[in-house]
Amino acid sequence: MPDDRLASQIAFLVEADKLKQILRRTPLVDGTRQENSAEHSWHLILAAMIAREYMPASVDHARVFEMMAVHDLVEIDAGDTFAYDAAAHETKDARERAAADRIFGLLPFDQASHLRALWEEFEAHATAEARFANAIDRLQPLLQNAYSGGGSWSAHQVTREQVLHRMAPIASTMPALWPFVLSLVDEFCASGVIRGG
Amino acid sequence: MPDDRLASQIAFLVEADKLKQILRRTPLVDGTRQENSAEHSWHLILAAMIAREYMPASVDHARVFEMMAVHDLVEIDAGDTFAYDAAAHETKDARERAAADRIFGLLPFDQASHLRALWEEFEAHATAEARFANAIDRLQPLLQNAYSGGGSWSAHQVTREQVLHRMAPIASTMPALWPFVLSLVDEFCASGVIRGG
Repeated sequence: MPDDRLASQIAFLVEADKLKQILRRTPLVDGTRQENSAEHSWHLILAAMIAREYMPASVDHARVFEMMAVHDLVEIDAGDTFAYDAAAHETKDARERAAADRIFGLLPFDQASHLRALWEEFEAHATAEARFANAIDRLQPLLQNAYSGGGSWSAHQVTREQVLHRMAPIASTMPALWPFVLSLVDEFCASGVIRGG
Repeated sequence: MPDDRLASQIAFLVEADKLKQILRRTPLVDGTRQENSAEHSWHLILAAMIAREYMPASVDHARVFEMMAVHDLVEIDAGDTFAYDAAAHETKDARERAAADRIFGLLPFDQASHLRALWEEFEAHATAEARFANAIDRLQPLLQNAYSGGGSWSAHQVTREQVLHRMAPIASTMPALWPFVLSLVDEFCASGVIRGG
């Protein structure tokens, strides 16, 4: 039998498996199914490895990766809140805080505190690491939507203004990527997938 | 239009999406479907964050996370080789090297070299980082199999000797976890899921 500390750690890792069942609005690139939040989190880490050169400030990359690994765990209880659903965003904070209490609370106290701090740092957008992680968390769904031919943009009749507002962390954190983001958005406006104006 | 370097990076990140379609033999804990290699890679990173205290040597955690993020990308071309399939293991190296050439080769040269070096380091088991990453890559499927009630052990009539041989990197790298591994394996031997002897 494992001791209490190990038992808590195993219980957390087994519980975390449920993130593989949380579906996002973004599709896989081939459009065969929706992406889940666990594989999305992996894709963010890979994207952060590749896009680090566009981040002007120096960042602690281990912390960025840890933040990305835990940033969506609260969705196990709170669900994925669609980026363009204003009503759901009103209750998002309370739902996610209760989820954080329960899910991080499965861990031994020191690790629960560490993971909760990472999640709160991600949510607060205040450190260079959190800003970089959040910008990548906007870039990756942009790629999923664009390379699947429209994804959640076409399914939910999103406007250009909404998409550019959502992508703003890329403009402020990785300005060198902004012309690419604009060109993609304009391409999908021109084809009518994103609504103009 | 992005410049060539950015275009290569985007092409790689879009190609990497295919790892979400590569199915492993291990099920999700609730048994509803097989796990895919992208969400598995995320789960390894989370497990490495939680289990670091069991690794006696100090390791570069950013490198461990990067290694885990890329360790299965070759499966996009080479497929997942089942741990207990001896015949498939004979051709695994050649298939995976060809896959590495193509997939990492999508990136700009400096990044292709970096990611390939991470993958080769993982495969060689020679550094402390690679040994830790490999031990976690054995522990996580053990949890998936055990907490789903048998998983790929019962589906493929695996023996105790095969499982313990497969788990050996845990014994050598995180010896404090070995009694827990043995107790889990013995429990599934006793219930007849893993074949004894």
